[in-house]
Formats: sequence, structure tokens, C-alpha cells
Amino acid sequence: MTSFWSTALTQVRPNEIRVRGYDVAELMGSRSFGDVVYLLMSGELPSGREGAMVEAILVAGADHSVAAPSTAAARLVASGGAPLQAAAAAGIIALDAHHGGAMEALACMLQEALGTAAPPGERPGPAPKLPDDEIRRRAAAIVDEALAARRRLPGFGHPVHKRDPRTERLRVLAQEWGLYVPHFRLVDAIGGEMAARGKPAAVNVDGAIAGILSDLRLDWRISRGFYVIARAAGLVAHVYEQSVREKPFKAPSWSEIEYLGPGPRPVPCTDEPGR
Amino acid sequence: MTSFWSTALTQVRPNEIRVRGYDVAELMGSRSFGDVVYLLMSGELPSGREGAMVEAILVAGADHSVAAPSTAAARLVASGGAPLQAAAAAGIIALDAHHGGAMEALACMLQEALGTAAPPGERPGPAPKLPDDEIRRRAAAIVDEALAARRRLPGFGHPVHKRDPRTERLRVLAQEWGLYVPHFRLVDAIGGEMAARGKPAAVNVDGAIAGILSDLRLDWRISRGFYVIARAAGLVAHVYEQSVREKPFKAPSWSEIEYLGPGPRPVPCTDEPGR
Amino acid sequence: MTSFWSTALTQVRPNEIRVRGYDVAELMGSRSFGDVVYLLMSGELPSGREGAMVEAILVAGADHSVAAPSTAAARLVASGGAPLQAAAAAGIIALDAHHGGAMEALACMLQEALGTAAPPGERPGPAPKLPDDEIRRRAAAIVDEALAARRRLPGFGHPVHKRDPRTERLRVLAQEWGLYVPHFRLVDAIGGEMAARGKPAAVNVDGAIAGILSDLRLDWRISRGFYVIARAAGLVAHVYEQSVREKPFKAPSWSEIEYLGPGPRPVPCTDEPGR
Amino acid sequence: MTSFWSTALTQVRPNEIRVRGYDVAELMGSRSFGDVVYLLMSGELPSGREGAMVEAILVAGADHSVAAPSTAAARLVASGGAPLQAAAAAGIIALDAHHGGAMEALACMLQEALGTAAPPGERPGPAPKLPDDEIRRRAAAIVDEALAARRRLPGFGHPVHKRDPRTERLRVLAQEWGLYVPHFRLVDAIGGEMAARGKPAAVNVDGAIAGILSDLRLDWRISRGFYVIARAAGLVAHVYEQSVREKPFKAPSWSEIEYLGPGPRPVPCTDEPGR
Repeated sequence: MTSFWSTALTQVRPNEIRVRGYDVAELMGSRSFGDVVYLLMSGELPSGREGAMVEAILVAGADHSVAAPSTAAARLVASGGAPLQAAAAAGIIALDAHHGGAMEALACMLQEALGTAAPPGERPGPAPKLPDDEIRRRAAAIVDEALAARRRLPGFGHPVHKRDPRTERLRVLAQEWGLYVPHFRLVDAIGGEMAARGKPAAVNVDGAIAGILSDLRLDWRISRGFYVIARAAGLVAHVYEQSVREKPFKAPSWSEIEYLGPGPRPVPCTDEPGR
Repeated sequence: MTSFWSTALTQVRPNEIRVRGYDVAELMGSRSFGDVVYLLMSGELPSGREGAMVEAILVAGADHSVAAPSTAAARLVASGGAPLQAAAAAGIIALDAHHGGAMEALACMLQEALGTAAPPGERPGPAPKLPDDEIRRRAAAIVDEALAARRRLPGFGHPVHKRDPRTERLRVLAQEWGLYVPHFRLVDAIGGEMAARGKPAAVNVDGAIAGILSDLRLDWRISRGFYVIARAAGLVAHVYEQSVREKPFKAPSWSEIEYLGPGPRPVPCTDEPGR
Repeated sequence: MTSFWSTALTQVRPNEIRVRGYDVAELMGSRSFGDVVYLLMSGELPSGREGAMVEAILVAGADHSVAAPSTAAARLVASGGAPLQAAAAAGIIALDAHHGGAMEALACMLQEALGTAAPPGERPGPAPKLPDDEIRRRAAAIVDEALAARRRLPGFGHPVHKRDPRTERLRVLAQEWGLYVPHFRLVDAIGGEMAARGKPAAVNVDGAIAGILSDLRLDWRISRGFYVIARAAGLVAHVYEQSVREKPFKAPSWSEIEYLGPGPRPVPCTDEPGR
Repeated sequence: MTSFWSTALTQVRPNEIRVRGYDVAELMGSRSFGDVVYLLMSGELPSGREGAMVEAILVAGADHSVAAPSTAAARLVASGGAPLQAAAAAGIIALDAHHGGAMEALACMLQEALGTAAPPGERPGPAPKLPDDEIRRRAAAIVDEALAARRRLPGFGHPVHKRDPRTERLRVLAQEWGLYVPHFRLVDAIGGEMAARGKPAAVNVDGAIAGILSDLRLDWRISRGFYVIARAAGLVAHVYEQSVREKPFKAPSWSEIEYLGPGPRPVPCTDEPGR
């Protein structure tokens, strides 16, 4: 009989833990957490600055105050008395299609547009070296198609930031570290084509990360995982703050909830009482 | 300024709680939980046996032992020391597309095939009165299309039960209570057409519930909600049992986990130690 | 070797599902969901109106609008795009010590005061038949001890309801159905002793349920489970409403969040860049 | 009126995000994720190697294969079709008292024994400089008390590792980086005193982390948060692997679940059918 459980991630044996073949004790102190996150996700340790890039992404995503449904939710859950990890987990559940998920949709589009998309579980191929005008051409095709379909492009625009400071910084780092390659360039080109059509759309942090993770040859299906790890930090800190600074049971007041349903009405009789 | 929160479900005022306009105190003891679940989901109290049908569905879905990923997961989570409600919640998260979600996909198909589908948030229309051969014709169309596309039809087949005892019973109750109407009949007709094509496919409990909920004019998008409420009961009971009967930290043994990754390898040097 | 999994709750075999020995198909339609919840929690089917009492408790707890941290949290999580069951689960995580958990603390006190408390996993003993003045005496002892320790008694008072309509109704039903026995009487007597000391404290719905569940001989450690099942209904309905009525990403605006931390400051230099 | 929300963690304004006063764009690329986690938790950026120590802790906790209830649970939940972040969250819920929580209990003991414990939300005081024999004396007191009370000391022993490789490595790093100070020394001294009494107890990874976090002057109440952030990485990787490598609905087989409850029995009649 085969085992109920199998994995290619980590091997545990008495007094030994190996992540993708590497002794965890050897990784500790010699490699950054960003390196190890990259190792877990891609199967390999970085050969260049990939781990530093992951660290920058983790820092970028660590917290955005209570101005995020996940964080507000986690604090409310904590106020019910839930333990720290469970309240943080409640917030993490929120990180779906409309809350970080944009990076996934965009990464998918980028990888398809550059022919790097791979089947689930395989690494995307290396991005082709393309001249600027070819990048621009592919961006234009994406933009035209989205405009024709009246579809909003994921990874652009932000409710608070006209110019997302995290995007700017990620671009500078990618350029400095030789990681500003086709996918991220394509993201920027899409923004350019939008502007050229009179629809300026600033690349948001999800958009920048989608470009970087694709350039790092990571399956778009795992993109939101980086956000989960990053934001776990902020959520833990918020839940802790909630529990030490505020009173329990943080509920919206009944008088601040607008009721839109039917008015008072009597329960109709039934000849099967209780049914 | 408008309120941050609004709802048409329940109105709370000092000393008064009204669900869809009905005083909760008046509902208690005079109406079943099934009636109130139906009220919450549809907006109205049942006029006939709809609430009894909901109760039967809740009983059907209450527990399926540890032979379900949700229940096994909830027990593992409880063994880490998580409080009862949080461990049950972990199990509930599992009730997605492959674990009860079939009822949603099927209900959607049924409502489209019978022209009852409504936009999100609106109730599906009343099912048309159709003769048996017209039901059969629409079933045949669904089956042919699925076979041509080599697509598995949701709501049929079960890893354990060749004949799902819950399906049989739900059908009998629906017939007795005058609720065996077009959607459930269409489910059975699909099964019949599969068999007629030499691909016998027994209606499973998800399939039966998809039919009933559609006959009760409930949006297919909320179908899994009934399963969530039902299985909450079993999950609570399992988590409690886990915590009172077993030792903490129920982990698969390292020796029973097959490791499929790369063998031991040294961490390569880097000239940027710690990065 | 023994099995990794064991349970005394439900037995699954091909074409057969038995809850505590009872065929689930036989339970469906002949027994209420309240009966089956009672069966799962206590091990036995009700012999009297216990299941009807459970149904009334489930109706009482089904929804309290957005005026509860769990519900507000679940709606926020849904707005991130999380699937229905996962958003409801996020809300359920909140149902801890300060959000329904009061019933657990009070049930524990009641069972100890009446000598019915049992070890985890066993049913509390039947409540002794006690005359009113003996009930009053034990209530007085509990109140005096709490006042001396300046400890708030769980199960009394409510942020919105001076007189909780659910409490009143549960008392009437318990009396009608012959289930107004020592634990619930003790709850009321505690309220009376508080009032007699000039500290009127209305029994809230958690207090009433704590009394009833104890009278039903249910381990206080499982009390919150009833609330989990009940509120699952309201949470599912709210999450559905959120997803069909509102726009995605429901976040508090940055301008409505008070920031209390240190002002802007430059990142100090470090001689280990990137560390 | 005051704001419903307040926080001292992060300030968001248009085009600006400041964590504890520091511009997030300035932190990105110049500070490690470990530095920022330390900043979120303590309020200050590290002045020495504290952030590197946090990174080592995050690497240590990143994954332990399926040999942990959290990971097994997350994979089961993923198999139901739950989205990546929700399945990872289900696993995170498990990280309670018996699954990483030991570090919290031990950190509390250490901070009390060294007089550094602070009220919730405040930083523990700096550890006093104590000679070895005073450390040993306090360790002996802790051990004697635990043995007398037949209480198991948290942070010692492991189901798989006799000598936990992560503990050894954390000790070496702490020593190298000048962070092997009183709390960690006290953990080791407790191990020594246990051995001296013929009860050898190896410091496990939770024990080492409890010592380090206390030496970093972090409130013991937030300890498990570090584990949550670390393990989020492993959980994300496992959930992804589950979804790309395995079939849906990973359920224990009915034949491998031992049933311990009552045998088949008929549902007794009731004169209130359906109740």
C-alpha cells in the first residue's frame, strides 16, 4: 500500500529536517527567510538576488493599517476572544480575488502573453528577451482586448494611492538588481498603453508583484501565497494590538446599521405548530 | 452620509430582534429552525412543508463520520488546542467545490435548463409544470452535452455509497410532501438518461439537495450554505469528541509520509551571507 | 495496529450512515434537526421536548444583524472575494469567550453549584430537585462571591437589550414544556439576588441558554457549539447578502482610522544593508 | 465622536504608507523582513542583530512536512477545493496551545522568573545580568516546582527529535551574535537541572524561541505570532502542492475509521412526528 501522505517539500527524520534537500539548520543564519520562501515555492535556492526581491515583496505587503477588509475583520474576530492565530487566520481568509487576488489574474495574463505559462505545479519558462517595441505591441493587444470587452485590467489603480509608493520602489529595486525583465516591463507597458488611450492607470502593488513573481519564474497560481505570508505579519500585530488596547466585543452599534428589509409583521399561524 | 453597514436580514433595536420583519421571540417555539433558515435564505416563511424539507436536509448533512476531509481537518486542528468554534470553522472552510460544492454546480445547471435561474440575490422563478417526456428531453440534452465534452456531471456518484440512503429518503419525503417537482425530477431524469447510455450514475445527496433547493426557489449561489449549517453540527460534535477523548497534537508520523523531493544537498555558498 | 481515526459519533458503511446507531435515513423526516443535534451532543435521542428546546435555542441564536463582531467580520471577509463557506467560517472563529462564550462560563458555574458537573466527555448528572429557598441560597452564595471578588457574572446584561426578548421567550417555553428545572431556576435566582443587592442584572440570552443546556444534561464545555450551529445560519445569509448587494473590498477609509503611533522618521543607516 | 478604528501600527495616507513612522518604501530593500517583523511587534527597528535573529526563527519554523496537524489539516481543506489562502488559514488555526503554544507558556515563565514580565502591550524589561549560578538557582526552583506539581515543562522534548537541530543552531547563532543572554541561558539551565534530576529533557525549538524572543524583549503573549508568520510559508507551499499534485476530496476511507459507538438501533416512535 502507498502512503496516505506524500510531499516533495520537506523531509523529516529523527534529528534532521531538510527543506527541498537542504538541512534547515544550515539554512538558518546563512540564508534569508526570503531565500527559503523562494526555495519552498520554486524548488531551488536563489542563484542571484531573487531572495532579496522576495524580502522586499514581503516588506511591501506586511501591513496597510486597518484600511483593508482582512485587517478590520481580524480585529473584530479578536474582539470576540479568539486566540491570536485564529483571529489572524480569519483575516487571511479574506485575501481572495478582490484583496490581493488581482496579482494572480494579472500574472496569468502576463505569463500567457509572453508564452511562459506552465501547467499547474511546473515552473513557468524563462521569459524571452524581447525588444521594447515588441513588449509594447503585446501590451497594446492586451489593452485593446480589455477595452473592447469593457473589462477592468487587474493590477492597476488603487482606492487610496494614485502613485503606489511600493510599486515605485519595487521597480527601482528590480532595475538595480537586474530583475527588471520582460514580465514587469510588460506591466509597465500596459500602463503606458492605457495612458496613451487616455485612460491613465497606475500600476498598483499587486501589479508590480505580479510582474516580479512572473520574472522569478513562479507559477501564477501561487502568487497570492506571497501576500498571505507578508500580511500574516501585519495581521498578527493588529490582532495583538486589538487584544491589549481595546475592550472585548467590538460590534457596530445597532443604531448605525441601516435596515432595508420588510417592516414588522406577525408570524402567520400554521396548523403544524413547531414545523 | 450613508451608513457603512446595511442589511435586509434582521433589525435589532433595544429589546427587539426582527428577522425579515418577524419577531424572533414569536418565531421561537412556534416555528422550526428549518423554517427560520428558509426565511433567512428566501426572505419569506414557508407556506407549506418547505421548512420540514429544510430540516430533513439539515439532518441528512449533519455528519458523515471522519470519512470527509472537513471532519478529519477539524479534528487535527482541535488537537493543536484550538477552541471548539475555531476548529469547527477550519473544517467548514473545506466545504468548497469538491466537498458539497457539487450541489451548487448542479443547481445552476438545473435552474438554467428549466429557465428559472435568476440574477444573484433574486429568487429563481417558479418551475414550469412540464410533462415527463419534456423533462426527459432536457435531461438528455444535458447528458449528451456532458458526454460530448467528457465532463463529469456534478451530483452523481459517491466514493462510498452506490445507492445513497439520503437521496432515497429525500425523494420519498419530497414526493409525500408534494415537493417532488421539476428540478428534482430533472435530476432523476438525468440519472435515467445516463443509465440509458450505459453509464449508470446514482444521484448522490448533493444531487438530491440541488434539486430540492431549486424546487424551493433558492438561488443556486447559496446552496452550499445549507450544507455549512448542517455540517456545523457534526463538526462541533467531532471537535468536542477529539478534545475529550484523544491526546493533543495528532500528527501523521514522519515514517508514514512518503518524501518525493531531492535528496540531501549542501547549501551553496553565497557572497552575500544572510541574504 | 490500531486505526489512526476513531469515533463514537457516526458509522459509515457502503449505503449506510448511522448516527449514534440510528439510520440517518430513518431520522430524516421523522426527527427534527434539533433532535439530531441533541443526539450528536448527548449520545441519545430526546425522550421529551429536549429537541424542541434545542430548536428554540437555534432560532434564538440564528441572527443578530451586523451588531455582532462575527457578522461584521464575515461580511468584510466576503468582500475580499472569499467563498461563502470560508467567509462564514471567519465569522464563526469570533464566537469565543467574549461572544457567546459567556454561556460556557456560566454553565460551568451552574453545574458546579448544583453538583452536576462531570468530567470532560461525560454527561452532567441529573439536577437535584431543590426547593426554591435552597436555589436562592446557592444563588446568594454565587452572587456574594462574585461581588466580593469584583467579578462580573457571565450571562447577565446586554449592550442593546435591557430585557432580552429571547430570554423571556426561552423561559416561557421551558416552563410550558416542563424543562424549567434547577439550572435555569438558579440563573433566574442569581438575577434576583443581584437585584436584591441593588445591582439589577437581566439574564441575557447566553444566561438562559446556559441554564437550559445544563438542565438538558449537556457538558458545559460544548455549550458554545449550539451557538456555532445557530449562528452559522445568520452568517451564511449575511455573507450571501454581502456578495450579491455590495461592491468588493469593503474597507474602512484611511481617513476614518485614527493613527496613534510615532510620527514620520527616517530609517536609520545600518552597516549591514539588507539585514 | 472618536473613530471606530484606531491603531499605532501603520499610517496610510494617499501615496504614503508608514509603519511605526517609517516609510515602507524606504524599508523595502534596505531592511530585511525580519527587521520589519521585529518593528511591527516591538515598535522599534533593531539596533543590532535582532532582525537577523528573527529571520533565523522564521527559517526554523517555515516547514516541518506533513508531520504536523496544521499541515495535514491544511492539505485536507485544500482538497475540498478551498482557495489557497483559506486552506492555509485553516492550518494556521491549529497553531494553538499544543502546537507552538508551548513557546508562549515557557516565555511567560521565563519572564516571570527573571522579573522582566510586563503588562499586556508593554515591552518586557531588559534582562538582568546574572551570573551562571544565579541562573542555575532560578532554573532549579522552576524544575523543583514543576516536578512537585507533576507538571510537564513546556518547551522541552519532541515527538521526533531527541536533539532538535533547530535548537542547536539557534543557540550557536545567538552566541555568535551576542544574543545568548539570560532568558535563553535560563532555558538551557532548566534542561540541565532536569538532567541533573535524572529526567533529561532536550530543549525543543519552541523552548529555544521562547528564550530568544524574551531576550529580544518581546511580550510572551505575542510569541506564537512568530510561528504563525513562519509556518504560513510552509502551509502555502503544502496547499499549493496538494492542489497541483493530488486529486480532490482526500478523505480517510470509511474502512480505516474505527467506530466505537452504539450498534444499530431503530428510531423510537414519538407522538409528535417531526419534532
